[in-house]
Amino acid sequence: MTARFALNSATTKHWPLPDLVAGCVRAGVRGVGLWREETAAFGLDKTASLVRDAGLAVTSLCRGGFFTDEGWFDDNRRAIDEAATLGAPALVLVSGGLPAGSRDLDSARAHVGDAIGRLVPHAQSAGVRLALEPLHPMFAADRCVVSTLGQALDLVAPHPVDAAGVVVDTYHLWWDDQVWAQIARAGRESRIACFQVADWVTPLPAGVLLGRGLPGDGCVDNRRFRRAVDAAGYTGPVEVEVFSAEVWARPGDEVLDAALRGYRETVVG
Amino acid sequence: MTARFALNSATTKHWPLPDLVAGCVRAGVRGVGLWREETAAFGLDKTASLVRDAGLAVTSLCRGGFFTDEGWFDDNRRAIDEAATLGAPALVLVSGGLPAGSRDLDSARAHVGDAIGRLVPHAQSAGVRLALEPLHPMFAADRCVVSTLGQALDLVAPHPVDAAGVVVDTYHLWWDDQVWAQIARAGRESRIACFQVADWVTPLPAGVLLGRGLPGDGCVDNRRFRRAVDAAGYTGPVEVEVFSAEVWARPGDEVLDAALRGYRETVVG
Repeated sequence: MTARFALNSATTKHWPLPDLVAGCVRAGVRGVGLWREETAAFGLDKTASLVRDAGLAVTSLCRGGFFTDEGWFDDNRRAIDEAATLGAPALVLVSGGLPAGSRDLDSARAHVGDAIGRLVPHAQSAGVRLALEPLHPMFAADRCVVSTLGQALDLVAPHPVDAAGVVVDTYHLWWDDQVWAQIARAGRESRIACFQVADWVTPLPAGVLLGRGLPGDGCVDNRRFRRAVDAAGYTGPVEVEVFSAEVWARPGDEVLDAALRGYRETVVG
Repeated sequence: MTARFALNSATTKHWPLPDLVAGCVRAGVRGVGLWREETAAFGLDKTASLVRDAGLAVTSLCRGGFFTDEGWFDDNRRAIDEAATLGAPALVLVSGGLPAGSRDLDSARAHVGDAIGRLVPHAQSAGVRLALEPLHPMFAADRCVVSTLGQALDLVAPHPVDAAGVVVDTYHLWWDDQVWAQIARAGRESRIACFQVADWVTPLPAGVLLGRGLPGDGCVDNRRFRRAVDAAGYTGPVEVEVFSAEVWARPGDEVLDAALRGYRETVVG
C-alpha cells in the first residue's frame, strides 16, 4: 500500500535528517525527497550515505531554477551535481518570478525554456533529469512564471526527454480543467518526472506559501490525479510535499503517520 | 482621455456615496460601478436618483452569484431587479466556491452554467445582462469555481448573448497565457459584458482578498489587456476595481486621482 509513497522533507521541516530517515524506515517508507539547504547543512556526502545505508531512495532534490537570479547558471549546475551525488533522478526546478519592474510574462517564460536548454548538457552528463514545476498562478509574479502543466510541457518540449521533464504537483494544478488533457499529453510525451501531492485549505495565510494541507485535509481530488498519472504511464513515487506552518509545529513521526493515513485514504485506490 | 474610465466603488470603500458621486463629477469621470450592499444601505431608489441627477452612468452592479448559497435563485432575481432600477447594463456574477466537503470542481462548474440558465428569462425581461466573472484560481475553493476566461465563455455559451456575458478582469486573468486567444473569442462571440482593471502586488495578505494594487502599481500589463478587448470589439467602460486595505485607508479623492493617473499612464494609449 505504501510502496510508492515518498516523504518530501519539506513536510517535516524541523525533523532532523537522521530522525527523518529512521522514522521513514520504521514506517516502511522507501523514498524521500530532499532539499538542498538541509543536505548542505548536514553535509552532502554524509546525507547520501545516511540515506543509502538506510535503504531509502532519494526521489527528488528541491530545488534548482530561479533563472532570474544572478549566478543562476553555476548554481543550477551545482544543484545537478548534488542530485547526482544523492542518486536523485530528478532536480525540481522552480523557475522564479518576473524580473523587477517587468510586466512581460511571455519573455520571462521564454527565458525559462532557454535556461533549461543551457543546462541540458550538464544534466545529461550527470544522469539527472531537470523537472520543471508549474506553480499555482498566485506565485506567477514572485516565485514561478510557469503556471500550468501545459506551459511547462511547451517549455520542455524542445529538449531531450531524458534530460527535461515536468513535475505534476496537485496543490498547484488542481483548479485547472485542462490539467487532465495535459497529464495525458505528458504521458504520451514521456515527460512526467515527479508526482507530488498535497491539499488545498483556506483561508490562505499571508504570503500564501505556508498554507497547504496534508492529503485529505482539503478539497483537492488527489485520487483523480493519481489515477490520471497512472493512466498516463507514470509508475514512479508519489511524494507528499506540504508546506505548512501548522504541520511543521507537529512532531515528525506524527506528521508522517498522518501523511500515510491521508495517502491511503485519499490518494491510492 | 478619461471618457471610458469608470470608478468601481469597491476601490474607495469608505467614501460615502454622495461624496463619491460629487468626486467623480469634479474629476470628469462619467461612470461608476456599484455594490448591492452600499446601494441597499443608502437606499436603492435614492442611489439611482443621486447617480442619474449627477449625469453618471452605472456601469455595473456587483454582485450576484454564489450559487451554492441557500436562496440563491431569489437573491439573484432581486439583484437583477436592482441592476435594472439603477440602469446598470450588467450584473456581475461571482459564482461561489465548492460546496462544503466537495472535491468535485466539474460538477460545481456545471451547476454555475445551470444556474445562469435559470436566471436568463428574468435577466432578459429586466434588460440586464448577467456577467459571469472568472476569478483568480486562488479563489477556486471558497469564492469562485470559475477560474479562466475560457471556462466562463464555455459556461455562458449555451445562453443568449443579450442575457449572458463575461467579465474580463485583469487582476484575475493576467497570469493566463491563453487569455489573449480567449479575449479574441469573447469578442467573436459578443460576450464581453464588463472590463475591469487592477494590479497585482506581492506579498499577498492573509485571506488574499484585499491585496490588489491600483493600475500601474504592480506587474499586470493592463495596456495589453485594454488593447486586446478593444481589438475584440469592446467599446464599453474601463472600470478600475481595487480591493485593498491600504487603498481603503486613503481619502477617496486622493484614490480617485491616483486611479486616473494609473489609468492614463498604464491602461490607455
